[in-house]
Amino acid sequence: MAKQDRAIRTRQTILTAAAKVFEERGYQAATIAEILNTAGVTKGALYFHFESKEQLAQGVLHEQDQQTPIPARTCKLQELADEVLLHAYRLQHDPMVRAAVRLTMDQHAQGLDRTGPFLHWSRICRHLLETARSQGELLPHVNPTITADVIVGTFAGIQSMSQTLTDYRDLTQRTTALLQHLLPSITHPSILATLDLTEQRGHHIHNETRNHHPQPAPTP
Amino acid sequence: MAKQDRAIRTRQTILTAAAKVFEERGYQAATIAEILNTAGVTKGALYFHFESKEQLAQGVLHEQDQQTPIPARTCKLQELADEVLLHAYRLQHDPMVRAAVRLTMDQHAQGLDRTGPFLHWSRICRHLLETARSQGELLPHVNPTITADVIVGTFAGIQSMSQTLTDYRDLTQRTTALLQHLLPSITHPSILATLDLTEQRGHHIHNETRNHHPQPAPTP
Repeated sequence: MAKQDRAIRTRQTILTAAAKVFEERGYQAATIAEILNTAGVTKGALYFHFESKEQLAQGVLHEQDQQTPIPARTCKLQELADEVLLHAYRLQHDPMVRAAVRLTMDQHAQGLDRTGPFLHWSRICRHLLETARSQGELLPHVNPTITADVIVGTFAGIQSMSQTLTDYRDLTQRTTALLQHLLPSITHPSILATLDLTEQRGHHIHNETRNHHPQPAPTP
Repeated sequence: MAKQDRAIRTRQTILTAAAKVFEERGYQAATIAEILNTAGVTKGALYFHFESKEQLAQGVLHEQDQQTPIPARTCKLQELADEVLLHAYRLQHDPMVRAAVRLTMDQHAQGLDRTGPFLHWSRICRHLLETARSQGELLPHVNPTITADVIVGTFAGIQSMSQTLTDYRDLTQRTTALLQHLLPSITHPSILATLDLTEQRGHHIHNETRNHHPQPAPTP
C-alpha cells in the first residue's frame, strides 16, 4: 500500500472511532484517550491528523459533506426533496452521518462550533431553490434564503423527534410527511403532482448514487 | 407562611436551581450536589421533594406543561399558531422553559425518558386540529395525528437552529416563517387570510395571559 493510501486509511479509522465515541458519550464527556483506544492507532498517528478533540469533531461533522452528490434532476424541487430524503436514509444506515448529526445537535458541546452543518445545508438548499425559481418552479412570494432555513431547521427537529421516539425507525415516514407539509406553500399544484416524495425514495437514490460512483459500503 | 406554602416555595427553589444546573452542564454531567449547592436548601428538603436526578429532570420537563393556558380562540388554527408563537416567546424569556426544552433535546441524557414533552405537545396540537377539522377549518386530506407530529418536530428543530446560530435572538422570526410554510398545506386560503402569525404576537399573548391570570414574572 502506498504511503498516502495508508495515511488516508488511518485518518478514516480515527474518524470512525471518533464518531463512535462522540455518539456514545457526547462531545463533552468524550476523551482523546478513548478515541485512541477505540481506533487502535498510535498517539503520534492521531496527532499527525488531528491536533485536538475539537478538530476530531470537526472532522466528523465534515464527513457528512463528503458524501457522493445526488444526481442532478431537471426539476430542482425534486432534487431538493431528494437531498432531504437521502439524508434521512443515510441517518438510518450510516453511523458516520448519525454521529455528525448528533454532534451538530449537541447543545452541551462547549467550545465546539456547531454552526457549520446548519450553514452548509442552508447554502445547498438556497442554491437549489434559486435555480428552481429561475426555472419558474416557485410561487412568486418565496424567499429562497428564508425557505432554505425553514427546510434545514425543520428537518433537524423531525430527525431529533424520530430519534427520541423510535430510534429513527419512522424517520423516512416523518420526512415524507415533512415535505408534504412544506412544499405546497412554495410551489404550484402542477409541479407538486410530478414530485416523488415517497418513503422508499431515499433508498432508491442511495442505490442510484452507488451505482454511478462505486464506493465501499458504510460500516454496518 | 403556612407550612404548605413553604413547601411549594422550596420545591420551586429546587426546580429553579435544577433548571440552571441542567442547562449549564447537561443532564449527564449535572450532579445532585451542585443542584443542592445552587438551591441553598438542605439535603433532606431536596429528597423530600425529589428522590433522584431523574425525578428532578422530570420536574423541570413537567414545568413547561404548567404554564397558564392561552385564551381560547374561535378559529382553532389561530389558537394552534398562538400556542407555538407563545412557546417561542417563552423560550426567549423564561429560563425554566428554556431548561425544559434543552433537557428534551439532550440526546446524551442516559436514563432520562425524554418522550414526554414530544407526546404532550403532540396531543395538544392534535386536539386543536381535530376541533379545527370539525369546524371545517382544515383541507379534507389533513390527518390531525400526522400534522400534529410535524408541527411539534419542526418547531423542535427551528428552536434548535435558532439557539445554535443566534442564541434565540431570531426565534420569533423563524417561528413565523415556520407557520407561514406549514399552514398553507392544511387550511383554506380564506382562513389563512384571517390568521395573525406575526413575530410580535407571542409577546402580546404573553401579556394577555398575565392580565387574565396575574402571576409572578419569570426570573430574568
